[in-house]
Amino acid sequence: MAQHMDLPGSLSELSRALRTRAVSPVEVTEALLARVEADETNSFITVTAERAREDAARAEREIGAGGYRGPLHGVPVGIKDLVYTGGIRTTMASAFFEDHVPDRDGAVARRLREAGSVLLGKTNTHEFAYGPTGDRSFFGPTRNPHDPGRITGGSSGGSGAAVATGLLYGAIGSDTGGSIRIPAALCGVVGMKPTFGRVGKSGVFPLAWTLDHVGPLTRTVEDNALFLSALAGHDPEDPHSVNRPKEDFARDLRGGVRGTVVGVPTDFYFEHVDDEIGARVREAAEVFRALGAEIREVGVPNVWETLHAQRLTLAAEAYAVHEERLKSDPGRFDDQGLERLLQGEELRAYRYANAQQRKLRSRQEFGEVLEGVDVILAPSVPIPATEIGQRQTSINGHQEGVYSALTRLTGPTNMNGLPSLSVPCGTTASGLPVGLQLMGRPFGEATLYRFGHAYEGASDPAR
Amino acid sequence: MAQHMDLPGSLSELSRALRTRAVSPVEVTEALLARVEADETNSFITVTAERAREDAARAEREIGAGGYRGPLHGVPVGIKDLVYTGGIRTTMASAFFEDHVPDRDGAVARRLREAGSVLLGKTNTHEFAYGPTGDRSFFGPTRNPHDPGRITGGSSGGSGAAVATGLLYGAIGSDTGGSIRIPAALCGVVGMKPTFGRVGKSGVFPLAWTLDHVGPLTRTVEDNALFLSALAGHDPEDPHSVNRPKEDFARDLRGGVRGTVVGVPTDFYFEHVDDEIGARVREAAEVFRALGAEIREVGVPNVWETLHAQRLTLAAEAYAVHEERLKSDPGRFDDQGLERLLQGEELRAYRYANAQQRKLRSRQEFGEVLEGVDVILAPSVPIPATEIGQRQTSINGHQEGVYSALTRLTGPTNMNGLPSLSVPCGTTASGLPVGLQLMGRPFGEATLYRFGHAYEGASDPAR
Repeated sequence: MAQHMDLPGSLSELSRALRTRAVSPVEVTEALLARVEADETNSFITVTAERAREDAARAEREIGAGGYRGPLHGVPVGIKDLVYTGGIRTTMASAFFEDHVPDRDGAVARRLREAGSVLLGKTNTHEFAYGPTGDRSFFGPTRNPHDPGRITGGSSGGSGAAVATGLLYGAIGSDTGGSIRIPAALCGVVGMKPTFGRVGKSGVFPLAWTLDHVGPLTRTVEDNALFLSALAGHDPEDPHSVNRPKEDFARDLRGGVRGTVVGVPTDFYFEHVDDEIGARVREAAEVFRALGAEIREVGVPNVWETLHAQRLTLAAEAYAVHEERLKSDPGRFDDQGLERLLQGEELRAYRYANAQQRKLRSRQEFGEVLEGVDVILAPSVPIPATEIGQRQTSINGHQEGVYSALTRLTGPTNMNGLPSLSVPCGTTASGLPVGLQLMGRPFGEATLYRFGHAYEGASDPAR
Repeated sequence: MAQHMDLPGSLSELSRALRTRAVSPVEVTEALLARVEADETNSFITVTAERAREDAARAEREIGAGGYRGPLHGVPVGIKDLVYTGGIRTTMASAFFEDHVPDRDGAVARRLREAGSVLLGKTNTHEFAYGPTGDRSFFGPTRNPHDPGRITGGSSGGSGAAVATGLLYGAIGSDTGGSIRIPAALCGVVGMKPTFGRVGKSGVFPLAWTLDHVGPLTRTVEDNALFLSALAGHDPEDPHSVNRPKEDFARDLRGGVRGTVVGVPTDFYFEHVDDEIGARVREAAEVFRALGAEIREVGVPNVWETLHAQRLTLAAEAYAVHEERLKSDPGRFDDQGLERLLQGEELRAYRYANAQQRKLRSRQEFGEVLEGVDVILAPSVPIPATEIGQRQTSINGHQEGVYSALTRLTGPTNMNGLPSLSVPCGTTASGLPVGLQLMGRPFGEATLYRFGHAYEGASDPAR
């Protein structure tokens, strides 16, 4: 039976096997569809089995005829259910869009199709992507593969859990305050929030226009670089899209880190961080040192102010996006989502204007730090996965809301738009994954992948 | 006596005379200082006679020694009193800054100094640049050279009047909703609002960060191109500054308009426009046709919405800029300025967020129109200069506030950032100047100058 076949462990390995026809896309697809059927994480809102079988058959024909398209050809992938897919239900995990079938693909869905990938389904998300836990979806909470009573993190929780449990080789997520990096960290996979504007957002339902980023979740760093290479590129229908030449993000992957400088912040990023997580991340710094990098303490100024600016911007823009629905049919929102959205109504415009000035200053502040170091290293999330429904947490005696804690270390780079990669970084004593965050210069994704790959190889020699 | 000398009529003529040493910077400066003493337009807040004499003497020495710096070397200029000048009082026309002396030059003041120009003084402005009439300054209203009972337009009213009356060969203005183009139109001079980001704004007191533009007012189009060539360039201290190669904006000046297409909007720009002004601008279109351009009607969509977005953005950002002063010492503002500023306090952030989305759509909308035409032609201001203190007007029976009418046709390009040039376009029967507005593609200032110069030459063969 197909579902018993021994599947390659990573997208890059699968790619090689597909290209050489050692493995058939159809067999892989059938094996994963069987796994999806047995899934207990609730990763999918819609499984597109029929479409997957068509895609797989086409990929098999094309590869067989010598028409190999590239590393995603024949690879089963998922798309967060916030990205429009033509002819396939796209719900935003909301009752409002329970039966919504878009006419056409969003830009990234189209790119995945053009890359020849196999669409297995639409992954679960926090309702309208407006929550970092992933436990408030019209289709039920996603469950952490490492402990089904705990959250996956969100909002791209279905993408994180599906990749972690081997249902998919990669999945698209979106990240407005950490929504790719948080589930990546809590589920133990790799997640990239690229530079703002790098990946087109037309046909992605907005949460907050100026903070939204689209990017991939995968099992390995190399996989992520391959996936981003397919997603990135100019999107003329997205006014925030940046027009830059096509890049191979895996190009520097094996360049190592000898002679580089890794910046470790002296403040903000290590405040109110769970002891075990702080220890794992400091161990990661030692791994980089052992690989030949210099570890340098850096002070990144005003990150709290930047975080506050990000939160205000998010609340205002989310209200703007949902204003009509909030006025006409508030009861159709999840009750927690409704309460949060309404907090955006009364915010003052002049404070939002000030927040945008903070964005510009934050770019300068991070830019100055990144003149002296190659990457900034920090935890992705200061706490391990909390319990489903839990809303308060205590970090070494510091009381904090779960939403606030989960997004605290990721939110600032949504504001300033810098690329930020979360890489698995061991586990807590109770077996919950920890994520390492690497932040870099604008459009420096290839550098982040180089550091992530070096760390991954050193921390897990099996790779 | 120096003040009786026959001065060249334009900056470009003066430049040629200075370069060939036919005229001395010292003589020109003395002649203009004598004129400034007799000025009845109240164009200057501070006359910098001592500095001017030093600058002129230095320019004379440098040019005499063969060290000619370029077209502004030895040319007397003024700077709006919103731009910081090191060691020279900079007031923003406000009681708050009555005795304020900055430590160092703003970026454009430094550029004028480096170009070897002669600083004659700091020109009057509407208080904090927050008004399009120019008649509310702590230092009294500016008066229109064509009728001293009427406004110059503002906020850069001192720059407009001083250039129009021959006190200066050029002056820096700033433009947030029309503050360069409005006084240019009402005083009968040339004013350019360049593309957003083209001219650096560090050391310019902000009115609204995302709408503020700095640019020149001059007597002729050629003068303006020469002046902008000195002002433009990357300003690393201004986060909105764009890093582009240095340009000679006069390079295409004599290229003519044969074979080009001039777009004339069918709506918005000719609604509620004074009959005489509408007639002058339509005659201008005929001049372009006679010069070999095709005149094509164009529909620019949603300009009203873009204007409303500009107004909301302005009110919110101006409140943000002045928040501390409004809370600590409101009585020190001009009473009309205070009332206007306070209107920004209660505006909602989500409406501001929507306005920024409108900005992006406006860029696309204007961009699509400008794919089919080389420039868009419109009136700069729909009414001639109103009386000082007047706040309501009637345009063919349409009742409108003077502030609203004055800024209505200029404000949209502050929102979308497109370059926009105002060129003199005849007068009304009562002798009040009319301004023609030419709007172009991002960073297409040289094209606007080419059209402006062609029109100027055809409409005034003396030039």
